[in-house]
Amino acid sequence: MNEETLTDSGRWLLPEGIEELLPPEARRVEQLRRRLIDLYDGWGYDLVIPPFVEYLESLLTGVGHDLELKTFKLTDQLSGRLLGVRADMTPQVARIDARRLHSDLPTRLCYLGTVLHTRPGAAGETRSPLQVGAELYGHAGVESDVEVLCLMLETLRVTGHDEAHVDLGHVGIFRGLSRRAGLSAEQEGILFEALQRKAGAEIEASLAGWALDPGDRAMLGRLAALNGGPGVLAEARAALADAGAEVEAALADLERIAGLLGQRMPGVPLYFDLAELRGYHYHTGPVFAAYLPGRGQAVAQGGRYDDIGRVFGRARPATGFSADLRALVSLLPEAREPAGGIYAPWTEDPAQASRVAELRAAGERVICALPGAEGTPGAHGCDRVLVLQGGSWTVTPVAS
Amino acid sequence: MNEETLTDSGRWLLPEGIEELLPPEARRVEQLRRRLIDLYDGWGYDLVIPPFVEYLESLLTGVGHDLELKTFKLTDQLSGRLLGVRADMTPQVARIDARRLHSDLPTRLCYLGTVLHTRPGAAGETRSPLQVGAELYGHAGVESDVEVLCLMLETLRVTGHDEAHVDLGHVGIFRGLSRRAGLSAEQEGILFEALQRKAGAEIEASLAGWALDPGDRAMLGRLAALNGGPGVLAEARAALADAGAEVEAALADLERIAGLLGQRMPGVPLYFDLAELRGYHYHTGPVFAAYLPGRGQAVAQGGRYDDIGRVFGRARPATGFSADLRALVSLLPEAREPAGGIYAPWTEDPAQASRVAELRAAGERVICALPGAEGTPGAHGCDRVLVLQGGSWTVTPVAS
Repeated sequence: MNEETLTDSGRWLLPEGIEELLPPEARRVEQLRRRLIDLYDGWGYDLVIPPFVEYLESLLTGVGHDLELKTFKLTDQLSGRLLGVRADMTPQVARIDARRLHSDLPTRLCYLGTVLHTRPGAAGETRSPLQVGAELYGHAGVESDVEVLCLMLETLRVTGHDEAHVDLGHVGIFRGLSRRAGLSAEQEGILFEALQRKAGAEIEASLAGWALDPGDRAMLGRLAALNGGPGVLAEARAALADAGAEVEAALADLERIAGLLGQRMPGVPLYFDLAELRGYHYHTGPVFAAYLPGRGQAVAQGGRYDDIGRVFGRARPATGFSADLRALVSLLPEAREPAGGIYAPWTEDPAQASRVAELRAAGERVICALPGAEGTPGAHGCDRVLVLQGGSWTVTPVAS
Repeated sequence: MNEETLTDSGRWLLPEGIEELLPPEARRVEQLRRRLIDLYDGWGYDLVIPPFVEYLESLLTGVGHDLELKTFKLTDQLSGRLLGVRADMTPQVARIDARRLHSDLPTRLCYLGTVLHTRPGAAGETRSPLQVGAELYGHAGVESDVEVLCLMLETLRVTGHDEAHVDLGHVGIFRGLSRRAGLSAEQEGILFEALQRKAGAEIEASLAGWALDPGDRAMLGRLAALNGGPGVLAEARAALADAGAEVEAALADLERIAGLLGQRMPGVPLYFDLAELRGYHYHTGPVFAAYLPGRGQAVAQGGRYDDIGRVFGRARPATGFSADLRALVSLLPEAREPAGGIYAPWTEDPAQASRVAELRAAGERVICALPGAEGTPGAHGCDRVLVLQGGSWTVTPVAS
């Protein structure tokens, strides 16, 4: 524990990685929140508001060990069972699709809320992201991946950024090669971990030490290098020609996504990374992320995760994306000054009260002075005042 | 634990008193959320977004035992210290006023967010209210109480209800009488508890058994009966004439509040309850609550709590109110049907994509069909379709 947190001035600090939003940033977050929910609504994505805590098994079944470590646990005093504080809203939304809604048609849902992590992903990272995302259930084709991908890019456009580039991968490639080569779970884990770091020499050394078919070994060895612009797909077609149906289908998916995205959002730079395994234990198909120039971390990411509903008794295809709303707010252009407001002096005149009500109904911000604590209009952020002129309450600019 | 929660169909139930919001209710909550935040903004109340968890001492210092029992505790893996999940946002907002903002002028803040309670207040009550409220710091006079009270009533008007009545009390009355009579903490506790239940016979019996000045005993004995319309204040003036300065000041506060409220919001029925001690351990002055006909529970409540900032190193006068947004949503008139939407067939025609983007930019909801999972437009909530007519994509009503 930091000694400073014990001193009087530091006593009320927030825990590391736990943030609060004050004016005017809270207002910017609220405004972007509204624009995004309206955007998603315009695309047919209905808002859901999952609970902040659930029984632990609902939150964690089938999502893997990483999320389990990230999840705060609580004891429910009513049932004696363990509750988890949500560390990711995606499994909650999948549960809602599977257990609460009963459509056989594609279902589009969006959500926005705070999630909590026991530990930051990296030093200095937030432990309380404001997660925003959209999910599309019930359609297995790449057309739904493309819809979600386009909505992810529109999300960035709302923040004023149309220069994002997209990283595109497909977990079916590594999964197909690993299965074909007969890698053990341990071998797959070692290779997976080295691929994430693109640690070429380590990958070579590992592959050389295992008893593999030479063709399979060669294909696994090529994976880390298969990244770059659209040419990579042709290169992969050649290099992985003998990799079997699963890999072939994955490459076909990527080609089709690139084609459709080029029609829908021409000019968006597309990078392929066939060793990209973001959320490998979770995803089942294409995976994608959006990057902005000068920012090392993805600002939004997503992918297909067809298996998630099965643990909830209803396996539907699923694809979606998410982002941290606070990170998106940081992308907005510099805040414009708020519109200002009208400062009304303290009085008991009912005519003033009516005038104030009218002004507020017309969208004005009116701050009423309180006797003995007036201050200047400017100190209250007001650029105008309400004054009694010729018997009527009139808005006039602050005398400068 | 209920056995049913172990069956497969019940396995994914939510914990008792923990709710989630699905479409279309989530949309109604979102819409009311926006209208309220806009209302508060129009009155000069800036939005703050406090964190979901904080160090326990920040959440609980000075707020009393009730809130401590209601607060879920977590261990922070980074600091080893205890965290609390907020059970009430008011202390957080008070901390923000005291520690983060540094204005000497009146500061107006509003907030909206989920709070969690370890146990429901009563059987069947929610454990995850969506708390919404507004707080005014830095002004000690009843004028700020009246501002907050009016904003509480405006909150109900936004839900379509202008028939609320207000219950008004003042903790200074019981506190002044208790101090004057020299009640021990134990005696005060017994009397407090009996007053909450208006248990007249119990109150008489307790008072009779204690060694008190006969005048003080008589005044304490009158308290439970001092409730009703505006006439109660005159009655109290007579009955509590010898109660001393603190009680006299409290009665003067209530008279002034009634007068100002009558000017600002004529016609709002006002009931006085001088034994009303809602939040006694927390409040320091007037306390108020709004009721609607046919609803036993208050739909919004608040009061003055001048001492709260002291524990954060900056004691400022404070008054505010709060409500449960979900309870407010239940007050809204029946949902109107959503505006409907436009269903667009699956195609790769870029002209359709442009038309869809235009329609969405104009505020329309457009749902794009996905190949192999089309369904009817109506099944997607759409009342119109996008069709290619004479070479251009045109919106037409669904053929009935």
